[in-house]
Order: sequence, then structure tokens, then C-alpha cells
Amino acid sequence: MRKVADSTVRRLSLYLRFLEEFEEQGIDTISSEALASRGGTTSAQVRKDLSFFGSFGKRGLGYAVPELAGRLREILGLERRYRVAMIGAGKIGSALVQYRGFRQRGFDIVAIFDVDPGKVGHQWNGLAVQDIAGLEAELGRHPIDMAVLVTPAEAAQPVVDRLVRLGVKAILNFAPLQLTVPDDVVVKSVNLALELETLSYALNNR
Amino acid sequence: MRKVADSTVRRLSLYLRFLEEFEEQGIDTISSEALASRGGTTSAQVRKDLSFFGSFGKRGLGYAVPELAGRLREILGLERRYRVAMIGAGKIGSALVQYRGFRQRGFDIVAIFDVDPGKVGHQWNGLAVQDIAGLEAELGRHPIDMAVLVTPAEAAQPVVDRLVRLGVKAILNFAPLQLTVPDDVVVKSVNLALELETLSYALNNR
Repeated sequence: MRKVADSTVRRLSLYLRFLEEFEEQGIDTISSEALASRGGTTSAQVRKDLSFFGSFGKRGLGYAVPELAGRLREILGLERRYRVAMIGAGKIGSALVQYRGFRQRGFDIVAIFDVDPGKVGHQWNGLAVQDIAGLEAELGRHPIDMAVLVTPAEAAQPVVDRLVRLGVKAILNFAPLQLTVPDDVVVKSVNLALELETLSYALNNR
Repeated sequence: MRKVADSTVRRLSLYLRFLEEFEEQGIDTISSEALASRGGTTSAQVRKDLSFFGSFGKRGLGYAVPELAGRLREILGLERRYRVAMIGAGKIGSALVQYRGFRQRGFDIVAIFDVDPGKVGHQWNGLAVQDIAGLEAELGRHPIDMAVLVTPAEAAQPVVDRLVRLGVKAILNFAPLQLTVPDDVVVKSVNLALELETLSYALNNR
């Protein structure tokens, strides 16, 4: 398979959301134009994005909604559920644990870890915060698929090294630093202040 | 000025963070190699990113840290502070209001709005949640520079239309939909479940 850009994968996720809305409305077929207009892009972009993964739709007839939605779920790996550990029980972690969007899309937060004895043992959304010292023992018993990292910057790399040794291959990083991981581990970083800086840049360079 | 890609602007933000760390450590000059290795990129990329904005550094001598940091702050519009309104006082909103990273980078949350009478009047980090019905009156008296949108999907577009009429030109959107805005309004969307989907895609397509 050709290397697919991150921006393409993001658009596929968006198309899937729109297709699921169309499904709920009982719409059976959809044109690339309709999918594009719902997603703020062009029909050429929709066709190009989908072309990475094979041939979809019929000229003049559009896409079969349930079929395309199913294929996108398959491509995005969303036909199964994922076990996710939250590393860090701070404010952002607290919001994320309660965030329904994760569970709705198949991502179950199954463990929360923190270093602070004042937090360990507290119940969060039905889960007890565990001592990060027990990370190896817990993940040895109950392996996870992904980790969400919401620690302070200085704590992040050492815990990532431990996660990597435990075989975790996917990390969503909210800590404000660049993580170092082996080639077979994928890291996506979210930096909320940086998002605002792309706005301030846009306001100042128009 | 040439059109600069979003990914370039994000790297400039990261370079600025690293430069500020170097400043704190009393480091006066830095090579593009050192800046690149700190940011997980290449020195050619660093030079290319900076070349959009003029000529920096001296061959063989590297970049003057305080000078380049100052220039990046200027480019990113970070030599001033921004007044930010939070629209939606749910769980993600609550975490964001308390998130120190915003204030540290010059973004002050100055107002919080919600539609829920059960939330209006409650104090959040020293700010009282205001009724969204009073949006026009409040922003008329105390204009803002940016809005952070953390409403449910169905509530998002109508409130964005109101913000646009009030002259707001920059919106950070956490609601899971594509917003429609005029060309002179910039929207950045953050979708946390979608970030996990780029991870599940990566795990299933390696």
C-alpha cells in the first residue's frame, strides 16, 4: 500500500462520521459531491482519498452508504474495540476519562495511572486511579492497545520508555514535548496551546 | 508573503518552545542541527521553515537564540495577549479553563458561556459562567479575539454564526463537525476521538 498522509486518514475519519449520519437518516447512496460538501472539501479530494484503498462507487450512481461506511471502518481499524490506559490523572486526564466520544468510537479507557499518592485510589468514572509504580504488573495482567499520555513534560519520556518496553505500540501524547520512540511505535501529539498559536499566526498574517 | 502551510506554523511554534528552553539555560547561539534534533526534524527542514520569513543565522555560526526567539514570537503574533471566550461549560471546557498552557502562551480565558441554567452563575477558575443568551451584550462590552467552542455538535453552527456577526475572526473548535464560516474567519478543529482513529489506522496498516 502506498504511504497515506495523516491528513488523508483524518478526512477518512470525517467521511465515516458523515456516512454514519447518512445511514441514520436512511440514505442509501451518496454522491462524492454530497460527501465533499458535508466535509468542506471537493469531490475530487474525496475520490482521491478513497482511491488509495481501492475502487468505490459507480460513476453516476455514487457510493453505497453502508458499504462505504463498512469499508472505512475496516481501513481505520474500527471493527474492533481498543483498550486504552490513561497515564496522568490531572485536569485534562479527568476530562478525557469522561469524554464520551472515545467510547462511542470504540476506545475504552480501562486503567488510569498517576504518581501522586493523593490521587491513587480515587474513583474516576468507575475506575480507581492506580499507582504508576504498578504499571508493569497491571499491564502484564491486562495488556492495553494504546496509552494516552497527560503527564507533565518532564515525566513523559521515562514513562513512555516503560510503555514501549511493555509492548505498547500507539501513544496519544498531550505532554508538551517531542517523544523519542522506536520506529514500530506510533505517537500522535496534541498540543492545545499550539492550536491557539496557529490561530494567532493566522490573525497576524492575513 | 507566500502561503505558509499549517504544518510549518506548527513547527515554528515548537522551535520557539525549544529556543525558550535554550534561553533559560543561557545558551546564546544554536545550530539548525541542534534545533532540528531537539524537534525530531532535519536541519534542512528548519532552514526551509525559517526561509519563508527572511534570512536568519550566519553560516557556520548558527542562530542567535534571543533574536530568533523574538522574531518567531513576532511571526506567530505572540508579542501580545489574546482575550479568549470559552463557549460551553462541559467537561472538556472545564479542563481547558484550568489548563495553564493557554495563559502561559498569552491566551487569557476571559469569559465562559453555557446554555444550561444549572451551570450559569457557577464560578470556574474565578470566572462566573454566563448565559449564552447574553453573548452579544457581553462581547459588545468586552470584545474578544478568539473563541474556543466546546458545545455539542448540534449547538455549534448557530453559536458560530453569532460569533461571526460579533466580529470574532478566530475559533478553536472541539465540536465534532465541520463549521461553515466566511473566508476571513479562521477555524482550527480538534477532534480527540479522531486522533485515536489515526492511531488505530496506524496499528492496522503497518
